[in-house]
Amino acid sequence: MAKDSQIELPVKAFGWAARDTSGTLSPFHFSRRDNGDDDVTLRILFCGVCHSDLHTIKNDWGFTTYPVVPGHEIVGIATKIGKNVKKFKVGDKVGVGVIVESCKECEYCKQDLESYCPRLVYTYNSPYYDGTRTQGGYSNMVVVNQRYVLRFPENLPLDAGAPLLCAGITVYSPMKYYGMTEPGKCLGVAGLGGLGHVAVKFGKAFGLKVTVISTSAKKQSEAIERLGADSFVVSSDPAQMKAAMGTMDYIIDTISAVHSLVPLLGLLKLNGKLVTVGLPNKPLELPIFPLVAGRKLIGGSNFGGLEETQEMLDFCGKHNIAADIELIKMDQINTAIERLSKADVKYRFVIDVANSLAS
Amino acid sequence: MAKDSQIELPVKAFGWAARDTSGTLSPFHFSRRDNGDDDVTLRILFCGVCHSDLHTIKNDWGFTTYPVVPGHEIVGIATKIGKNVKKFKVGDKVGVGVIVESCKECEYCKQDLESYCPRLVYTYNSPYYDGTRTQGGYSNMVVVNQRYVLRFPENLPLDAGAPLLCAGITVYSPMKYYGMTEPGKCLGVAGLGGLGHVAVKFGKAFGLKVTVISTSAKKQSEAIERLGADSFVVSSDPAQMKAAMGTMDYIIDTISAVHSLVPLLGLLKLNGKLVTVGLPNKPLELPIFPLVAGRKLIGGSNFGGLEETQEMLDFCGKHNIAADIELIKMDQINTAIERLSKADVKYRFVIDVANSLAS
Repeated sequence: MAKDSQIELPVKAFGWAARDTSGTLSPFHFSRRDNGDDDVTLRILFCGVCHSDLHTIKNDWGFTTYPVVPGHEIVGIATKIGKNVKKFKVGDKVGVGVIVESCKECEYCKQDLESYCPRLVYTYNSPYYDGTRTQGGYSNMVVVNQRYVLRFPENLPLDAGAPLLCAGITVYSPMKYYGMTEPGKCLGVAGLGGLGHVAVKFGKAFGLKVTVISTSAKKQSEAIERLGADSFVVSSDPAQMKAAMGTMDYIIDTISAVHSLVPLLGLLKLNGKLVTVGLPNKPLELPIFPLVAGRKLIGGSNFGGLEETQEMLDFCGKHNIAADIELIKMDQINTAIERLSKADVKYRFVIDVANSLAS
Repeated sequence: MAKDSQIELPVKAFGWAARDTSGTLSPFHFSRRDNGDDDVTLRILFCGVCHSDLHTIKNDWGFTTYPVVPGHEIVGIATKIGKNVKKFKVGDKVGVGVIVESCKECEYCKQDLESYCPRLVYTYNSPYYDGTRTQGGYSNMVVVNQRYVLRFPENLPLDAGAPLLCAGITVYSPMKYYGMTEPGKCLGVAGLGGLGHVAVKFGKAFGLKVTVISTSAKKQSEAIERLGADSFVVSSDPAQMKAAMGTMDYIIDTISAVHSLVPLLGLLKLNGKLVTVGLPNKPLELPIFPLVAGRKLIGGSNFGGLEETQEMLDFCGKHNIAADIELIKMDQINTAIERLSKADVKYRFVIDVANSLAS
């Protein structure tokens, strides 16, 4: 790793890192491990810009170690393959998502639920088993154990497909786990950002009637015409919210700001399910009466295991689902982060890493 | 009905009613309808004293109409049968629970989910379809449509069985709906009152390992020795709570006071389910992170439909489950209500109506 870190590894790498809580990213030379017998080395082509990147570089969650290279929506080409790696070959299109290691032995790993392993290692800003710290995909290359490498569907665009590795699986996994996939049922998608816009596409692919719930009336035509939603409710309009009461079977709540759950619970039918995937940094108010009176539930979910992530990618390949993105160069990242913090993006920034990362 | 009410009905009835927000109960002459073709008339033998009775007589929820005769855990003998009633005969032991009417036509009634019918009529303090108001089981008799009358298992005690009609179904229904019945799994029961102590018994009957979670250390021996719980955690003891973290598959939360959900969520394993059946009168704080990190859910449930209530009674008959009660005379009710408000009861008061209600 670089002089900022403790351990020098054999492979030189280059990326952009944040050095302090300003969150400003700048060029950063560091190092990575050699490709081991079970590893795949990726030349990184594209990397999505996730809200978690923003929180991490500013140390919003309080556990950032600087310098940190963010990025966990990574698409690239396999350039090296360890001798134990059978499912990939050099030249394959591959992806890496939110985690790069887990214990492989606990009850969760054994159930392909690596995302819940107590010893999981995040793709960046996380202590790795060898004592180094992980660095993410805003960089030229990465070495990853094969278990955490995904096959990328041939027919999907590599740039617009990158956000599936985090935003995609984060909405796909709870939709499957909580049974929000029954054709003909009504899905509400609260918040139309990186996660929400992919949830709309999954909802349509599952055969659901999809309603976008947003504070922003100006997103209506886009939600319907561009993303394929069936209807739109402006959450700040009491008349529209009242008219939509009791009409939805499921809601996926992608809002990361602190917000009231009462109006969303009111939109649900009996037995309705509200799944939160945004991560507000303060507790929300939970009124018990609507839960009891309507036998409703509020559930959470983090991203998803590797097997399910592969299933999600294959589902996207089959249904031609990718994110709607704004492709940027590496040196535009600080502006992009600034715009992301204001929700000014349609709907995900993706960095054209290979074409803009001069070493 | 009585002079206090608008409509005089043909059958004279007698009970104890609250007249104002003091909640003090006193003798009350009123009237009920004649037994119709689809009705069953009950001579009331026993009636449980539910927390809802307490809230209603004091108008805690803001919709009490006085005078009100509470009581919705009613066990009695059928004394009249309408000509369309085939499943009961005079002399049968029967029960009446939380509701006495619903529309029978809506999607919920058609699915035997009458407890969620928008036009349901509660057993007391509720407008009935004929323009009168319902009065409950702290009284000598009641006339109820056969759909809302339950067969009472022959082998169960009539007094200790009465609380099953509300407390029993209120915990049985969510345990079934949320799948909290898998033998060998670990159930936490938070709060050891009328609902909680029945939940312990159901848990054991389903083959679960049951842990009682209570603020009161002195309940430990009783929970284990008398009720059959496997273990006990004092929720105010940080060391005990820490030791129990991540050990439970399900928690049924019967606490009706405002309380923190964070410690309870911490006790759950991955995919854990926390079901609230208490009804705190203010919103609780819902931290999103534990839900997301552990794919946990918080669900609500009200009591249950009539078919399921019958199933629950039959289950109790098969497993010899009844409540642990303190049997009181009618004229002890005000003291009992006072004690109930301080949670000073093991674990449910039941009124010996037939033997103590002089007309």
